[in-house]
Amino acid sequence: MNEPMKKQMALFFPFWEGLSSQWQEQLAGNASIRHYPKGSVIHQGRQDCLGILLILSGQIRAYINTEEGRELTLYRLFDGDICLFTASCVFNSIQFDIFVTPVQDVSVIHIPADVYRSCLEENARAALYTNELMASRFSEVMWVLEQVLSKKLDERLAALLLEEEYLSGSTDLALTHEQIANHLGSAREVISRMLKYFQSEGLVRLSRGHVHLTDLAGLTALAAEK
Amino acid sequence: MNEPMKKQMALFFPFWEGLSSQWQEQLAGNASIRHYPKGSVIHQGRQDCLGILLILSGQIRAYINTEEGRELTLYRLFDGDICLFTASCVFNSIQFDIFVTPVQDVSVIHIPADVYRSCLEENARAALYTNELMASRFSEVMWVLEQVLSKKLDERLAALLLEEEYLSGSTDLALTHEQIANHLGSAREVISRMLKYFQSEGLVRLSRGHVHLTDLAGLTALAAEK
Repeated sequence: MNEPMKKQMALFFPFWEGLSSQWQEQLAGNASIRHYPKGSVIHQGRQDCLGILLILSGQIRAYINTEEGRELTLYRLFDGDICLFTASCVFNSIQFDIFVTPVQDVSVIHIPADVYRSCLEENARAALYTNELMASRFSEVMWVLEQVLSKKLDERLAALLLEEEYLSGSTDLALTHEQIANHLGSAREVISRMLKYFQSEGLVRLSRGHVHLTDLAGLTALAAEK
Repeated sequence: MNEPMKKQMALFFPFWEGLSSQWQEQLAGNASIRHYPKGSVIHQGRQDCLGILLILSGQIRAYINTEEGRELTLYRLFDGDICLFTASCVFNSIQFDIFVTPVQDVSVIHIPADVYRSCLEENARAALYTNELMASRFSEVMWVLEQVLSKKLDERLAALLLEEEYLSGSTDLALTHEQIANHLGSAREVISRMLKYFQSEGLVRLSRGHVHLTDLAGLTALAAEK
């Protein structure tokens, strides 16, 4: 039963072969393929507890809302990644609200939170792997914290533009000033002003809904400043 | 064997009764009581991997070093808490450096990292509880991130002074400006200036190595501002 699903899951979970056939059946039998269009809402903080998502294709963004109503991107996840915080109720000690939205249309394997929790309760290797997943996300948030503490906004903006160029494989980025502000926890007007300054320095060229990177070496030098 | 140690451990680990007597023996037999004086270094980032510490008495502080060489407190741990990140090598995915130091003399039960790791590999409930511990620390770091993003320094300073008053049970705080700066990820001169402003507002009275809180209501109002 569910052989195609089991094959997919084996690619995501390094502990898969160590599970009993009953547990493999249990996970695969309760899993389903789901699709979320770009910009839809997958998860809105602790009141939601959708389940674990194994990302088959697309890109999602996990962010927080600051008290001023700004967004700050914590991390992005891609094909082959596992989204743990959409099942935040699995862990009682998660006392913060993360929001999850697709940056591109995504297809995922969904495993209900209660099924995953039961699996962890009986399978040490699965629980230990979930520790590693949480430690990975923790590491990404620590990186963001260090950026926010140590880097000036122009350096963080340069780093974000280079990251987007790397992810899209193009120097023509389809990004609004609002979207950029939401990645960096800043305000749209602040980002618009900074982008105009970047344009005046020859680093980018701006057009409606697009940022064209015109000086990658200059952006790289700026991003690497301490 | 090791009955007193086992009794102590049972108080820290909610999964203790579910462990086999072999595992109880293994953990207790490899554990030892250690003492660290105030101000000593317990753990300095990923190159260290001391083990898990169960705090019997005292207070420790976990912090990061920012690129500018400042410290920022992530969380503090007290009697009954478990310090996980002193065993950072247990999790391969921890890609950041946390420093741990006693704020007051501490006594701990030390469990070597490899023994604890082996226990997690075989005991799902222990691994799941460790997930909860990590989620707790994650929540504390998310709180710090939100503070750093959303709060002004005067609000964070007021909140810190009130927290110290709560922890010590006294409005006379034995804290240097340097120690306060290291909690808040700020510079000593910046904190000194802010404390002098607080003094001129009648919120505190300063003396060498001490901050006397003179207006708790005023500090509370300031700390709660958005």
